[in-house]
Amino acid sequence: MVTTRERIVGASAELFRRQGYTATGVKQIVAAAQAPFGSVYHHFPGGKEELGAAAIRSSGDWYALLVPAIFDPAPDVVTAVRTFFAGAAADLAASGYADACPIATVALEVASVSEPLREACADVFDGWLDSASERLTGAGIAAPRARELATGMVAALEGAFVLARAQRSTEPLAVAGELMADAVQRALPA
Amino acid sequence: MVTTRERIVGASAELFRRQGYTATGVKQIVAAAQAPFGSVYHHFPGGKEELGAAAIRSSGDWYALLVPAIFDPAPDVVTAVRTFFAGAAADLAASGYADACPIATVALEVASVSEPLREACADVFDGWLDSASERLTGAGIAAPRARELATGMVAALEGAFVLARAQRSTEPLAVAGELMADAVQRALPA
Repeated sequence: MVTTRERIVGASAELFRRQGYTATGVKQIVAAAQAPFGSVYHHFPGGKEELGAAAIRSSGDWYALLVPAIFDPAPDVVTAVRTFFAGAAADLAASGYADACPIATVALEVASVSEPLREACADVFDGWLDSASERLTGAGIAAPRARELATGMVAALEGAFVLARAQRSTEPLAVAGELMADAVQRALPA
Repeated sequence: MVTTRERIVGASAELFRRQGYTATGVKQIVAAAQAPFGSVYHHFPGGKEELGAAAIRSSGDWYALLVPAIFDPAPDVVTAVRTFFAGAAADLAASGYADACPIATVALEVASVSEPLREACADVFDGWLDSASERLTGAGIAAPRARELATGMVAALEGAFVLARAQRSTEPLAVAGELMADAVQRALPA
């Protein structure tokens, strides 16, 4: 069963993804979550900032599941990289270019103004980098190079989302995916 | 002489870069620009949205100057790519990880809610892609591949800014710069 707390966190993550942290008010969150206004402060005594950090970590955990879900059944890591970017492109287009990454928008908005929110974003990115690095080392790439390629993949994905949302085109995701698949291919042991 | 209009546009761009579009109020803009409150509506009858689009285009033009400034005196395009990412990393660190790209934050925040602002972001990115593509074709790379590499560079730069601001580290910019320098190197004619 989905608890009130989970509904509040889920609604916050969805609103952050579409319009960012600053534009999202507690009133809008409780309306989307169909929760009483006071329930936010009951579950998150620190208010919007504490809820924001919880929503970032929760979204981060959810997206982190995509790494094993896509990489583990793939025939090889290069195919997995292509599948990852193609899936991101399809999801973005299906949402009318509204739903990209809930972490990136918040990271850019609040990195300089809220230390708890910045830390939540940094922890999420670190988790993704660890998980992607693990798949690349599993394919025989040395750990330092695997970490660089994982960093490149996450950066390329996040930056391609920025371009794709502005241009209303999936082309940046396709191009970034091919560049990263190529870099991973060349890093594999012969 | 810097006009009131220019001061307003400049202050807006600076505030968007640090905290985004939504968090930036007209009151804060006029205070930063040392301009009378009414001057915003005198110069921008469409209010904050019209001013926002002007600030995005103005920042975009300013950043676009970096492409010729860095690529044209460089001994080769691979060196220019490295210099570009190294300069971005140095600027970001010097600002305490506050000043990244004013276009990316706004693009993520407003892409789904304001068509004039989305269009301004898309036009700025298109201008950067044209300018970077031109330098790569000038180095002998075929036009379609040059466009892909330019797209990859802008995506890698924007995404590396997201990671760098969250992690308070220039490493994502260094890694993204090396990956793109390598991709450009391999695209050059023998």
